[in-house]
Amino acid sequence: MKRHIEYLISVIVVLASSVICATAQPILVIGHKNPDADSILSAIALANLKTQQGIPALPLAQGTPNQETEFVLNACKLDAPSIQTSVAGQRVILVDHSDYLQAPADISKAAVVGLVDHHKLGGLTTDEPIEVWVFPTGCTSTIIARMYTSAGIPIPREIACGMLGAIISDTLLLSSPTTTQEDRDASAKLAQIAGVEDIQAFGQKQLQAKSSIEGISATNLLKQDLKTFDMHGRKVGVAQLELMDLSIVAARKDEFLSAMKILKDEGYHSILLMLTDIGKQGTDLLVVSDNVRIIESAFGLKEIGQSVWLPGVVSRKKQVVPGLLKAFEGDGAQ
Amino acid sequence: MKRHIEYLISVIVVLASSVICATAQPILVIGHKNPDADSILSAIALANLKTQQGIPALPLAQGTPNQETEFVLNACKLDAPSIQTSVAGQRVILVDHSDYLQAPADISKAAVVGLVDHHKLGGLTTDEPIEVWVFPTGCTSTIIARMYTSAGIPIPREIACGMLGAIISDTLLLSSPTTTQEDRDASAKLAQIAGVEDIQAFGQKQLQAKSSIEGISATNLLKQDLKTFDMHGRKVGVAQLELMDLSIVAARKDEFLSAMKILKDEGYHSILLMLTDIGKQGTDLLVVSDNVRIIESAFGLKEIGQSVWLPGVVSRKKQVVPGLLKAFEGDGAQ
Repeated sequence: MKRHIEYLISVIVVLASSVICATAQPILVIGHKNPDADSILSAIALANLKTQQGIPALPLAQGTPNQETEFVLNACKLDAPSIQTSVAGQRVILVDHSDYLQAPADISKAAVVGLVDHHKLGGLTTDEPIEVWVFPTGCTSTIIARMYTSAGIPIPREIACGMLGAIISDTLLLSSPTTTQEDRDASAKLAQIAGVEDIQAFGQKQLQAKSSIEGISATNLLKQDLKTFDMHGRKVGVAQLELMDLSIVAARKDEFLSAMKILKDEGYHSILLMLTDIGKQGTDLLVVSDNVRIIESAFGLKEIGQSVWLPGVVSRKKQVVPGLLKAFEGDGAQ
Repeated sequence: MKRHIEYLISVIVVLASSVICATAQPILVIGHKNPDADSILSAIALANLKTQQGIPALPLAQGTPNQETEFVLNACKLDAPSIQTSVAGQRVILVDHSDYLQAPADISKAAVVGLVDHHKLGGLTTDEPIEVWVFPTGCTSTIIARMYTSAGIPIPREIACGMLGAIISDTLLLSSPTTTQEDRDASAKLAQIAGVEDIQAFGQKQLQAKSSIEGISATNLLKQDLKTFDMHGRKVGVAQLELMDLSIVAARKDEFLSAMKILKDEGYHSILLMLTDIGKQGTDLLVVSDNVRIIESAFGLKEIGQSVWLPGVVSRKKQVVPGLLKAFEGDGAQ
């Protein structure tokens, strides 16, 4: 009899705690390390959608908003998400990334219950079936716009404005080769909801904010949009600065190279910095590497030294990372 | 001048070969090893959808259809896909799985361009952004029905019939706890297109076909729906036989255990066989393991020995695999 009562009590405790957990613990929606506009605005938008669907959710960020994101948050009257880098024991939806290197360090101690992304698949595993929206669009927010439509839920004006800012950021104002028709359609729809009459004018101001890098150290600029990849066993960092005009950084290349060499000592095989010229639609690629020949072979070039101009190259994920992965794979086989 | 001409020729050769590749090489759509009805019918359906969308695609299977799948193919007047286990150098869409152990052995030498699944995420990585439709529905074919709707493309009658068969198979005629409202809605819609007036009657005949195991050896039955998992470094096989009534196998338990012991010698830590009783909605679990206590802890049971009746348990992916993963994770930490 005593055992039965003990069992009953334990069942009640478990049931009660699961009710408490279900009501008290919202799902955390979080983007990648060194968050860009899409990582932050997508977290805000998806948390809003889930909450509207009756599933309480909280947007988080793994770092402070960069100057472009600040511009979008201010322009759209949105608050920056709280910063949090630990998610152990929580239910989490990842946005704008799907790999362990860019997720919170203790992500394997959390329950990932959803994933919304537009990058290459990064090797995430889960214990249970989850909801995954991954499509090769130019921006995660474009996929979230699709999710709102699919759920038949209206996008609040401020959120629509923020999602538009995310698309402008990721597609360089709809000019990057990653831009899809769905990104264009979503932008037009979001601009209408947000009351943005001229996307070009709004976008130009935003990209100017992105280019406001005066007074920020080379190290901080380098780390601001740095992504770290495991390339067939080698740790490779690819950072990017997207600027209206490279004249802003022309005098600072040596400063960047020094910062890259210091960063490289953190166990990296290679550090690449893409100085992307939005106006000219090309990238000045700075390289610090244990074996620059792998980097050369990734781009089919020779003797690039410390930097090389890559005309037409503006997208890290579509024009730089795939070639690097193949070059590192080839190198590993030798 | 000569170099320019050589360059021009090489460009023409590359362009010509890419045109040839684009026209001659369809995308391969392939399900998991030891294919079940969903793996085969989803491959057929998705290849049809892609082809209708102007992207030539070919369904393949990694093995012969089991007796249930044969029933569905015959009832729906569909041909079995060709069997192929090598996909190196090809563009591939994976259906009904997302992990390397269940994919073709040389999948890492192929370009995975799409993924449609309803299981836990299995750690797949890609070099480029791809299209991923993964949702916690009862069946991959339910997601493919959504894809047809989303694309505004009609489902051919025979394909709809096959997709209905896949849903009946995976959800045990809409009775498994994995069944979602979307599975029910999709079944009703597919039955209408296929001209199936009574889903229950159609489904009962199909489940009887699934239960027709006379004359098939225990080893073949075991391997027919075996899934192999990497559970925190241990190789674990979980096979399942879904039967209308376990009386069919009552006299064969020793035969199964012998077959499991032989299979276990292929480097497995544990082999589990779920003898699932569709009528009684429960599973007789047979166990052969290096450490049966891990299996016991997965189910919160003690002294299960070689077999245990698990009332209410019918779903491998929802009711068996998640608990096993947690138990093996806990064991690894000791």
